Amino acid sequence: MPKTVLYYFPAKALGEAIRLLLAYSGQEFEDHRIKFEDWGSFKSLMPFGQMPVLEIDGKKYAQSTAIARYLGQKNGLAGDNLEESFEIDQNIEFLIDIRDEAAEVHYEKDVKLKATKYEDNLKNKYPAMLKKLDEIIKQNKGHIAAGKLTWGDFVFAGSFDYMKVMLRMPDLEKKYPSFKQVIDAVYADEKVRTYGEKCPKTEF
Amino acid sequence: MPKTVLYYFPAKALGEAIRLLLAYSGQEFEDHRIKFEDWGSFKSLMPFGQMPVLEIDGKKYAQSTAIARYLGQKNGLAGDNLEESFEIDQNIEFLIDIRDEAAEVHYEKDVKLKATKYEDNLKNKYPAMLKKLDEIIKQNKGHIAAGKLTWGDFVFAGSFDYMKVMLRMPDLEKKYPSFKQVIDAVYADEKVRTYGEKCPKTEF
Repeated sequence: MPKTVLYYFPAKALGEAIRLLLAYSGQEFEDHRIKFEDWGSFKSLMPFGQMPVLEIDGKKYAQSTAIARYLGQKNGLAGDNLEESFEIDQNIEFLIDIRDEAAEVHYEKDVKLKATKYEDNLKNKYPAMLKKLDEIIKQNKGHIAAGKLTWGDFVFAGSFDYMKVMLRMPDLEKKYPSFKQVIDAVYADEKVRTYGEKCPKTEF
Repeated sequence: MPKTVLYYFPAKALGEAIRLLLAYSGQEFEDHRIKFEDWGSFKSLMPFGQMPVLEIDGKKYAQSTAIARYLGQKNGLAGDNLEESFEIDQNIEFLIDIRDEAAEVHYEKDVKLKATKYEDNLKNKYPAMLKKLDEIIKQNKGHIAAGKLTWGDFVFAGSFDYMKVMLRMPDLEKKYPSFKQVIDAVYADEKVRTYGEKCPKTEF
């Protein structure tokens, strides 16, 4: 078995999809959770000065979506053809659009501007984007794309709590039950469920 | 031949990589350039209310990176194996990180904050990111990844002028000649060069 280490903060955010995919694959891995206060001494060891980073037998893999796609392809969670693979990529790119909009507000340091941007997004952006995401999932029978379980569902499930915090929508899955369907589909796998039960609990 | 239409603004920005990939493939396509003032009447026709959108025989493909990856895979511009494909994805995700940092400044409406963010990025973010990108391209013999021409190079070449405008670095390729190498590698293809000579000229 290759030695596999995931380096990320003690958070789900952009790292949890990778943890879930590793759990699904049955691959044992060291879940190296680097505290925020220790990050300074690790930063220069990471290919882009960022995490998550997945290390397999000493080789480092960076960039969260690229890693998720790679693990998905290795573990039977990709599209069956180019059209399906495209569809997963397209819909995940849209999910990232939503995340980016929310992140721009969440990480805005100027308090006044943060409030203005939040109100603008809440009124003019989030409703249409979330409605569209809901439609996509319904069309795909409770999945992100291709009408079946793919790595795209893992990206959604892994980053969902982070999205909710950034969107300031703690009850998001109550408004859109389809979102819960995607998460349930991922955790329906026994190895993923076992990981979910044992892993450290974090807010997002 | 399928009927292929690309819908985008009269700009290179996020659409040009797709145009370059279509040119490379030898696929004739209608290059539908929608003026900014006409966009309102097209927006609702697009899957995510965004462009670029590629329409092939009536089927719409959205999200610029997903489309570029798809066209790359269809036209022999993908990785030869999962490792190479990962590498392209990883490095393009990093390129998008740079673009996102620059876009956050470029599209900031608050004039004072825009200036502050620009100074911060110019000092604390751009130098390390561009240096890393330069290293990657040098390691890959003038390419974005895998040491050969891939769809990643097309994404770089297509969005380069847009990046320069957003970074406010009109001489970027003079500082980093490796960047010019990537662009030259893409336009070395005769069909791409012909497209480049005939296409409408835009600033970015």
